[in-house]
Amino acid sequence: MLQPGRVSRRAVLTGAAGLVSASVMGLETPIASAQDRGAAVEPGRGPNEVGTRSAFDQPKRVPAGAASRTPLQDLHGMITPSDLHFERHHSGVPVIDPHTYRLLVHGLVERPTVFTLDDLKRFPSIGRICFLECSGNLGRQAGEKTRPQELCGLTSQSEWTGVMLSTLLREVGVRPEAKWFLAEGQDAAVMTRSIPIEKAFDDAMIAYAQNGEALRPEQGYPVRLLLPGFEGNSNVKWLRRLDLAAKPFMTREETSKYTDPLADGTARQFSFVMDARSVITSPVYPQKIEPGWMEIRGIAWSGRGKIQRVAVTTDGGKTWSKAALQEPVLSKAHTRFRMMWKWDGTPAVIMSRAVDETGYSQPDWAALQAVRGRRTRYHQNPVTGWKVGSDGQVLFAIEKVAE
Amino acid sequence: MLQPGRVSRRAVLTGAAGLVSASVMGLETPIASAQDRGAAVEPGRGPNEVGTRSAFDQPKRVPAGAASRTPLQDLHGMITPSDLHFERHHSGVPVIDPHTYRLLVHGLVERPTVFTLDDLKRFPSIGRICFLECSGNLGRQAGEKTRPQELCGLTSQSEWTGVMLSTLLREVGVRPEAKWFLAEGQDAAVMTRSIPIEKAFDDAMIAYAQNGEALRPEQGYPVRLLLPGFEGNSNVKWLRRLDLAAKPFMTREETSKYTDPLADGTARQFSFVMDARSVITSPVYPQKIEPGWMEIRGIAWSGRGKIQRVAVTTDGGKTWSKAALQEPVLSKAHTRFRMMWKWDGTPAVIMSRAVDETGYSQPDWAALQAVRGRRTRYHQNPVTGWKVGSDGQVLFAIEKVAE
Repeated sequence: MLQPGRVSRRAVLTGAAGLVSASVMGLETPIASAQDRGAAVEPGRGPNEVGTRSAFDQPKRVPAGAASRTPLQDLHGMITPSDLHFERHHSGVPVIDPHTYRLLVHGLVERPTVFTLDDLKRFPSIGRICFLECSGNLGRQAGEKTRPQELCGLTSQSEWTGVMLSTLLREVGVRPEAKWFLAEGQDAAVMTRSIPIEKAFDDAMIAYAQNGEALRPEQGYPVRLLLPGFEGNSNVKWLRRLDLAAKPFMTREETSKYTDPLADGTARQFSFVMDARSVITSPVYPQKIEPGWMEIRGIAWSGRGKIQRVAVTTDGGKTWSKAALQEPVLSKAHTRFRMMWKWDGTPAVIMSRAVDETGYSQPDWAALQAVRGRRTRYHQNPVTGWKVGSDGQVLFAIEKVAE
Repeated sequence: MLQPGRVSRRAVLTGAAGLVSASVMGLETPIASAQDRGAAVEPGRGPNEVGTRSAFDQPKRVPAGAASRTPLQDLHGMITPSDLHFERHHSGVPVIDPHTYRLLVHGLVERPTVFTLDDLKRFPSIGRICFLECSGNLGRQAGEKTRPQELCGLTSQSEWTGVMLSTLLREVGVRPEAKWFLAEGQDAAVMTRSIPIEKAFDDAMIAYAQNGEALRPEQGYPVRLLLPGFEGNSNVKWLRRLDLAAKPFMTREETSKYTDPLADGTARQFSFVMDARSVITSPVYPQKIEPGWMEIRGIAWSGRGKIQRVAVTTDGGKTWSKAALQEPVLSKAHTRFRMMWKWDGTPAVIMSRAVDETGYSQPDWAALQAVRGRRTRYHQNPVTGWKVGSDGQVLFAIEKVAE
């Protein structure tokens, strides 16, 4: 900030967080240019059919293997732009014609039924905002140069619209012996997962829209299963079949994968619910910060319900303060947290810890490893953070999550 | 819906709205194809940096003159995809380099100050979901073939992130005699509007992000004024200057435009707040419906606060029923409403009426005209609807809004 007529730096910044003191960013441009009434002398482009981003702001997913990661460090708020929602697929993104799309519901039901997309859209609809996270979302970090995108970019959030699965199941009539259902995708991998019938009658949805528009192809166009709070893999995309049964089907994707070997030699199977987690998204690598006041920002979420609080430390864990949460705080949803921080120019480590409404607290890495061990990358949700050098360079605090 | 083994139509549909009866959409494809496990035989595309829509689903704005309209009839939920948010500009979309961007705050302040974009991002941030609507949002209808997009596509909704204007004003120190402020844009039109200082200390924001990402160019990249509930024009885009003063500036855009001649020969000036309104988005033209159960869907909003209720009629206004509202119902926000309806195959007229938390009720066209007259297209928010012919063709019910 620069004051015309004084051309001096100011030190007092009064924010919503109270009276705070700030250093000032460099400012090379003369005041006159900001007052120049002729900044845009030529008319710009006229209206068009579909907008595009500014050439100066082009956030991108990072594709690697069979996934691409959301650039969390470049984003704000709680909605993830649909074209930046993380991807994870097992045999690529199929092209499905919505006119020939069919969903078969059969097995232990009274009336096996095939639904068209139009059928699904005639049912009572519902919308909710919730996150989707891959259970393998502890990324392979690139050492100190790890950004949130690499660390945990396999989580994103949308407003989803569709029909409650319970509505469809009342339509077909569930037999009392049905305790599980198989969800099968129409991709070349024929992705299949077994889901407890309780989830179907709780909050499972058959979703056909995302952030106001039809599902994106990589999110299951035209229809996906949505299981709020459950690991991403079980939210089967390009959904074409639900098969109700008495027992789980023990598919490849829930035996050779998505079963978690534990530290004690046993294994967890059907670890559906995503535990509470948080991540700071600013300041992080590759930012270089200046001494003074700034806002520490991040997101926190839990597959069990609402985020109750987020604690933030700026001294490597010695002391913790409560961050503000953006309203509305929704169940099973990314919740934006914010806390003002005055950096004094000395080395610092900033970390965040989420606590959800069940009282579950995001664990430290050591505590998590003692239980989960090192033989699985699934469901690893440790407290993580970034360190600030005396030069202001922010780097990933790898000592906190190294194996 | 089709039941394998019976290949017959069903009549009972049990939905969230209770036990309802439905006719069934045509289904030409043999059952076998839905059960065919080989639907996608080749792997699809791998992950990429930025996604694109399905070729089968390409909603588009309709550009006309200096505006483009949101395809409300193609959308779901409460978020408008950023690239489909309506546009309205007075001299096109300027290209602004965020590195040289400056915001000057001066006039009746203690410390005139220039803020860079980085400065603005260091302040405490806030996010909120709210609508933006052009006050000229009663479209020139195309007779019976009017869609919601033509009727009122100049309203859209985003999650906005930025800094409260009150935070900036505490930073610069407002002199007691300041009662208004001028907001000036950096476009070639140098758009200017005068805003009461009360709004600055209420909920005005300096927004730099929209639906998780930086503002879109046509929404003011890199920075716009956001005045929740106020007519779109006053939410000045490409914001470069705020000038605090004792009186309004009487700019072109608030005298020759955006002042409303009334039926009694007087004129309203500074008609900032957008009155409550609703619109049905399905079924509408050009849909052709089948007899049986379906859901009537739409959006309702008010610049004064939350939507309290939406009433829907399916008999041209003789009887009205209460629609369900999608949670969370937010203040000054598009709120999705839904109501199940069984069409019996005879001609029908469907309409919606919004009531906000202040008790204000969206008026009929005749009542509105008696007060507002016909000499202005601004702030026209009549109850509108669609008529269904005995052939199922849905057409705009122009007799309800004809002049």
